[in-house]
Amino acid sequence: MDIRVDVRKCRIPEEALKEGRARADGVLERLWSGEEEFTGWVRLPMEFDRDELERILRTAERIREQCRLLVVIGIGGSYLGTRAVLHALAGRSVPGCPEIRYAGHHLSGTAHAELLEEMEEKDTCLCVISKSGTTTESSIAFGILKDAMIRKYGPEAASARIYAVTDREKGILRQEVREEGYAAFDVPENIGGRYSVLTAVGLLPLAAAGVDIRELLRGAEAMAGDPLWDDEAVDYGVARYQLMNAGKAVEVFEYYEPQLRYLAEWLKQLFGESEGKEGKGLFPASLQLTSDLHSMGQFLQEGSPIVFETVLNVLRPDADLEIPPSAGALLAGKTMNQVNRIAVEAVIAAHEAAGVPVIRIDIPQLTAYYLGQLIYFFETTCAITAGLMGVNAFDQPGVEAYKAEMRRLLSEE
Amino acid sequence: MDIRVDVRKCRIPEEALKEGRARADGVLERLWSGEEEFTGWVRLPMEFDRDELERILRTAERIREQCRLLVVIGIGGSYLGTRAVLHALAGRSVPGCPEIRYAGHHLSGTAHAELLEEMEEKDTCLCVISKSGTTTESSIAFGILKDAMIRKYGPEAASARIYAVTDREKGILRQEVREEGYAAFDVPENIGGRYSVLTAVGLLPLAAAGVDIRELLRGAEAMAGDPLWDDEAVDYGVARYQLMNAGKAVEVFEYYEPQLRYLAEWLKQLFGESEGKEGKGLFPASLQLTSDLHSMGQFLQEGSPIVFETVLNVLRPDADLEIPPSAGALLAGKTMNQVNRIAVEAVIAAHEAAGVPVIRIDIPQLTAYYLGQLIYFFETTCAITAGLMGVNAFDQPGVEAYKAEMRRLLSEE
Repeated sequence: MDIRVDVRKCRIPEEALKEGRARADGVLERLWSGEEEFTGWVRLPMEFDRDELERILRTAERIREQCRLLVVIGIGGSYLGTRAVLHALAGRSVPGCPEIRYAGHHLSGTAHAELLEEMEEKDTCLCVISKSGTTTESSIAFGILKDAMIRKYGPEAASARIYAVTDREKGILRQEVREEGYAAFDVPENIGGRYSVLTAVGLLPLAAAGVDIRELLRGAEAMAGDPLWDDEAVDYGVARYQLMNAGKAVEVFEYYEPQLRYLAEWLKQLFGESEGKEGKGLFPASLQLTSDLHSMGQFLQEGSPIVFETVLNVLRPDADLEIPPSAGALLAGKTMNQVNRIAVEAVIAAHEAAGVPVIRIDIPQLTAYYLGQLIYFFETTCAITAGLMGVNAFDQPGVEAYKAEMRRLLSEE
Repeated sequence: MDIRVDVRKCRIPEEALKEGRARADGVLERLWSGEEEFTGWVRLPMEFDRDELERILRTAERIREQCRLLVVIGIGGSYLGTRAVLHALAGRSVPGCPEIRYAGHHLSGTAHAELLEEMEEKDTCLCVISKSGTTTESSIAFGILKDAMIRKYGPEAASARIYAVTDREKGILRQEVREEGYAAFDVPENIGGRYSVLTAVGLLPLAAAGVDIRELLRGAEAMAGDPLWDDEAVDYGVARYQLMNAGKAVEVFEYYEPQLRYLAEWLKQLFGESEGKEGKGLFPASLQLTSDLHSMGQFLQEGSPIVFETVLNVLRPDADLEIPPSAGALLAGKTMNQVNRIAVEAVIAAHEAAGVPVIRIDIPQLTAYYLGQLIYFFETTCAITAGLMGVNAFDQPGVEAYKAEMRRLLSEE
């Protein structure tokens, strides 16, 4: 069984789907041609360098031997994929692997102070991930945490506990790698940050945390090579595009398993940053259900008709619990997952009746293999919708504006 | 100093603001007349029953003596306000107060199993909050956790550790209060869930957790009685309304202090549930900056022009940290909060230049007093915008649809 998409509850006219599918074939062809920039992710799962993979696995083993705490320093595409996969697999933690903390994705003094305390107590390694090495948040965090490592271990031993993923040649972090002798991996040239979780950017920290990265790649490869699955990605990509044409402006990703929280954050970057340009794009939002039915349910049911929903539905959740008699006759004797499944159906039925389009993605189970499938599936879908919209899915020309303003203000202070 | 709103960067024509302000005066008059249903929150801060307040404080003291772990069971308006205030005050935890966990807002077997383990180890009290007592998620959680309490303490001692906030007379939970003798408080008749944080619904768990609830009420009272402040709420309410008229469909709440995460969730319910009806309403979303600039920054800068931003700007954050020399010349020697402040300015300038309307709310500091101000400010703003839109800010007719569907499916299984 693989992940499956159901777009039938969107009520998109058959004609529109057909027209979209025909155009999507052209987008897929261009993607696979390898002629476009930043499409290295397309053939990555089946052409992954076996030596690189071995080196990642050996390095991960060394990290596991060295530490009980691994701090992953990065922001945006440099950490969201890692966090998405690890959080989704939270129910499957592997004994003997370090705990993972994240840094470099905020500017909170409070959070850094807490992390420094924890580093005092536990054997620590750092994994710093930045293509340029000059991103403000990551630079600040790496500066502070590296100083703490040197105070704790001395300069040489600290360097042996610092791992970097950065540009192959350029940049301040690569220069430091050369000077300090950190073990390091490359951010591939032709893969952008938000498409990089299946490169060393994601694979090194994931492997160190105990995730079976071969399974992750195997899942992606199964998707990449499966013509039937192509249909699924095309259906989803075309549905998103035609819903936008029909006036929908917001896509709400809904999940019933709290473990999917960071997958939703990863999706926001993937879709938002790929499509949000030239005044276009679906605004990506997320809701954790059933919780958020009690806050946003009213809006979904009767509010401004600009929303469609994409449900991430896990068929076999990790744990379950029986509901006791005291919860009342309707619920007693059922299990939580049973009630959760009923909630999925009830919400879809109620929203469908209100005319809200609902897309449903069934995920067999939260394992490394299926997460690999999901990642590749969403990456392709995103490329398809962006292609249909006529925007470049792989650049991000708008992220420089505030950075330039920041440099100006910083140099004035 | 009080909280202040700046709507000048929205470029709303003076004429539109003027017209909106005139109509907002009528909305405020109706609010204060006390004639509308569910407007009990308007006069609450200045007319709070002193005996009730004393009883809340005494009960909170008893809870603090009894336990190290307090589980707050509730969903939507029954817990989001509490969580918003506590999370915002996380930097000010009070010694001797119990840790707070939340339950009853999800259907995760995994999360319940973890909580049961923690309850084994620590002296525990439950605070269950539900007007009807029949909400699915809360009923399930209360059933499971109450059984665990009885196993641990025996039936009588367990009842002395269970606290309830529910309808004064009706419902299954009130009935259980009578039978088991739980200490209990009333959910006021004329205040809806999303406006209830300054009633026993929020005040009991907050006081037990060590929050100075007198300060919270004093902040709200200062806002409620201040004619100058009325101008601030009116400006914000009118700006939101006119931005909607100008084609904006999504309001993004942006915060730079991670402590504001649940305030943003509370805002989503407040605005989403109040305005999202009759096909109207601004879709409320939230971003944690600077983190999410590296995922959603591209969309905000150049994506579909349906978004405006509301920045929650804390002027004096709790903790700070100096940035070391290794972070590079532009950053070294500055503090994190300094860089964060510069980021606020840079992002506003970059987005303003791109034509994105930005509303800025300055919050002097994250204290109970200012949170009281904020809560009352947002509640009033919401009533004003909904009034201008012509929808009832205090009902939620659409939340029954999926519940009815759920009851149908549950009884079929």
